[in-house]
Amino acid sequence: MPAIKPLDVKKLRDRTGAGFADCKNALVASDGDLARAVRWLREKGAAAAEKRSGRATGEGLVHAYVHQGRIGVLVELSCETDFVARNAQFRELAEDVAIHIASAYPAPARWVRRDEVPQAVIADESALIRVQLSKDPKNARKPAAILDRIVAGKLDRFLRERVLLEQPYALDDSKKMTVQDRVLDAAQAIKENIQVRRFVRLMRGEDAD
Amino acid sequence: MPAIKPLDVKKLRDRTGAGFADCKNALVASDGDLARAVRWLREKGAAAAEKRSGRATGEGLVHAYVHQGRIGVLVELSCETDFVARNAQFRELAEDVAIHIASAYPAPARWVRRDEVPQAVIADESALIRVQLSKDPKNARKPAAILDRIVAGKLDRFLRERVLLEQPYALDDSKKMTVQDRVLDAAQAIKENIQVRRFVRLMRGEDAD
Repeated sequence: MPAIKPLDVKKLRDRTGAGFADCKNALVASDGDLARAVRWLREKGAAAAEKRSGRATGEGLVHAYVHQGRIGVLVELSCETDFVARNAQFRELAEDVAIHIASAYPAPARWVRRDEVPQAVIADESALIRVQLSKDPKNARKPAAILDRIVAGKLDRFLRERVLLEQPYALDDSKKMTVQDRVLDAAQAIKENIQVRRFVRLMRGEDAD
Repeated sequence: MPAIKPLDVKKLRDRTGAGFADCKNALVASDGDLARAVRWLREKGAAAAEKRSGRATGEGLVHAYVHQGRIGVLVELSCETDFVARNAQFRELAEDVAIHIASAYPAPARWVRRDEVPQAVIADESALIRVQLSKDPKNARKPAAILDRIVAGKLDRFLRERVLLEQPYALDDSKKMTVQDRVLDAAQAIKENIQVRRFVRLMRGEDAD
């Protein structure tokens, strides 16, 4: 068992908001490697936050972010208690999610989660993918089952690009974290069920709906 | 002709943003009464701003306002030049309109202007008004033409309550000014065509669309 430095435990606590014992265990399990310990805690924490996700969220916050007077975002986050709704970490999460939505990486999100995507959109997108595939002559010889799998894969990529929680989180330089990871990290630190309820994004000069 | 005090001219200029000569003329025409002079300028100014309203507005601003983490508003204003888009009076107008929308007086606005109200909404509302009228037995004896006029009057009131620019401007204590008056005053002061292009209003906990 490697020697765990108290300073590393402190760093890990500051970074993740996890408890002292959890941080020590994470460092032991990760041979004292800080980056691995963060991931270990996230995996553990995500599980804990997911367990919390059944609890009622009757409180929350509407937050706004405007980028250079050009892109405006409103986001509604919900939580369990109004105590947390006033919490600085919760407000920081709201700001970060709003900035992510404004930044439009990889493309502007259109829905919060996959189950909100209308069936008509999925049908249209699948049809579009099939038309594109049919333009490549070498696809003509592929069995239907293979083509179906290609369509499913491309549809999945489309959804990961357009569903907010599945997008790569724009403020994470490593690009390994999704927006959902950011939310679960906050839920772990705050120890409440936290949900992104909805958002709107409005860009100057674009067509109104 | 009454003596016009230089201090009143200055006050009037500060309040309306109108030119020196206009303010002096307004005070002369209003017997030195500041409140009447403001109205005189507004009527004159509104006419000037309405003349401006044909000019192209390719620039503008997206502005956000959040009331106590509970009600969020995004509003897009357009103007003619990016110079004005950065102007303090223009930004103040955006803030005031956003606060008005958040304040929901007399009820939350649903459309910017009357021509945006869908025909289906007007048909539904008219039908509702007729049902309500039919419940009062004394309406049964009224000629159809009279009932039509009552319906038209009630429909007009509904639209004035729900169309943003026709609402009484919430930040005007006298309640004599509409939101459109506030926009025209700013257009007069800034001397550009200024339009409220669109807005969204999101209240914590309400049903998503």
